Amino acid sequence: MQVMIDLCVVPIGVGVSVSRYVAACQRILDEAGLKHQLGPYGTTIEGEWDAVFEAVRRCHETLHDMGAPRLFSTLKVGTRTDREQTIEDKLDSVRAKLQ
Amino acid sequence: MQVMIDLCVVPIGVGVSVSRYVAACQRILDEAGLKHQLGPYGTTIEGEWDAVFEAVRRCHETLHDMGAPRLFSTLKVGTRTDREQTIEDKLDSVRAKLQ
Amino acid sequence: MQVMIDLCVVPIGVGVSVSRYVAACQRILDEAGLKHQLGPYGTTIEGEWDAVFEAVRRCHETLHDMGAPRLFSTLKVGTRTDREQTIEDKLDSVRAKLQ
Amino acid sequence: MQVMIDLCVVPIGVGVSVSRYVAACQRILDEAGLKHQLGPYGTTIEGEWDAVFEAVRRCHETLHDMGAPRLFSTLKVGTRTDREQTIEDKLDSVRAKLQ
Repeated sequence: MQVMIDLCVVPIGVGVSVSRYVAACQRILDEAGLKHQLGPYGTTIEGEWDAVFEAVRRCHETLHDMGAPRLFSTLKVGTRTDREQTIEDKLDSVRAKLQ
Repeated sequence: MQVMIDLCVVPIGVGVSVSRYVAACQRILDEAGLKHQLGPYGTTIEGEWDAVFEAVRRCHETLHDMGAPRLFSTLKVGTRTDREQTIEDKLDSVRAKLQ
Repeated sequence: MQVMIDLCVVPIGVGVSVSRYVAACQRILDEAGLKHQLGPYGTTIEGEWDAVFEAVRRCHETLHDMGAPRLFSTLKVGTRTDREQTIEDKLDSVRAKLQ
Repeated sequence: MQVMIDLCVVPIGVGVSVSRYVAACQRILDEAGLKHQLGPYGTTIEGEWDAVFEAVRRCHETLHDMGAPRLFSTLKVGTRTDREQTIEDKLDSVRAKLQ
């Protein structure tokens, strides 16, 4: 099953600056070979369900290893059986309606 | 790694009444033997990371099998290494501050 | 317009224990006279749109005043024109399907 | 109080294609003069708290007027008192850590 998720990991208890933790997640997604796109409030990730959620788990494990005692992530998770849809498809279908 | 999540699955394209889909997820969580608590805007689930996310995947698969062509879930995912914390612990620590 | 929301405020940069901030939000909701129900991963709030979001803003303002330099909230926001639905209605409609 | 939010509105009960509703929200944000950026899983919006949430309310009202009987939105809401931060600042601080 293909899935497209939005992942936003917030480390709690390590101060206000969290960008190095977000950067660590980007590297994990690169190493996993998953298609992903960084946004201001989360990263959109596309792929097979198990590979995507394996990467999410690795993000939590790695950020704890980096010293974050508590992590709070929010995810949006989309699956569909009617058709395939990529990140670009989603953006294009909205942009087409704006013209 | 223990995890506590809040799961809210929204089926799209099956009309406005979605309670039978939420009920199907409750049954999946029961069968998985995972501790869970239904709320008005999602279900809180406690357990080992892999078991919890295996159940989330089964919810998506089952709801597609029930006829939902598109699913949109929102999850909050919490892990911590400083201490263990159950659903009751979380509620109790807030209630203690209210007295 | 009536709205039912789920509000989860996470203070960043104040350590791992956040329950006193959650308790402060409960008091704001009480003072606002809004119907609300505490859950392990957020508080469900019912009411008129403007009153509910006025209370959310007051939560952010108050938690900053309490010393939190950065706040991250997640909200689920539901409105419907087909019928009225309370917190109890939502839970009852799922439970009815479980019998 | 400045706020940066991520807004994702899901209309329920109008079929699987929701892009024309997302496009309507984009127009509302344009008319409100709010800085915003469309992403695959939501729109990031920057501005004064009241102006931003006034626009969110108008999105819900407009989509109901367009025929959606039920709306489910998820929002991430960030405020900070330690410094100002724009959408570009957030992305740049992660990218700087990736080099």
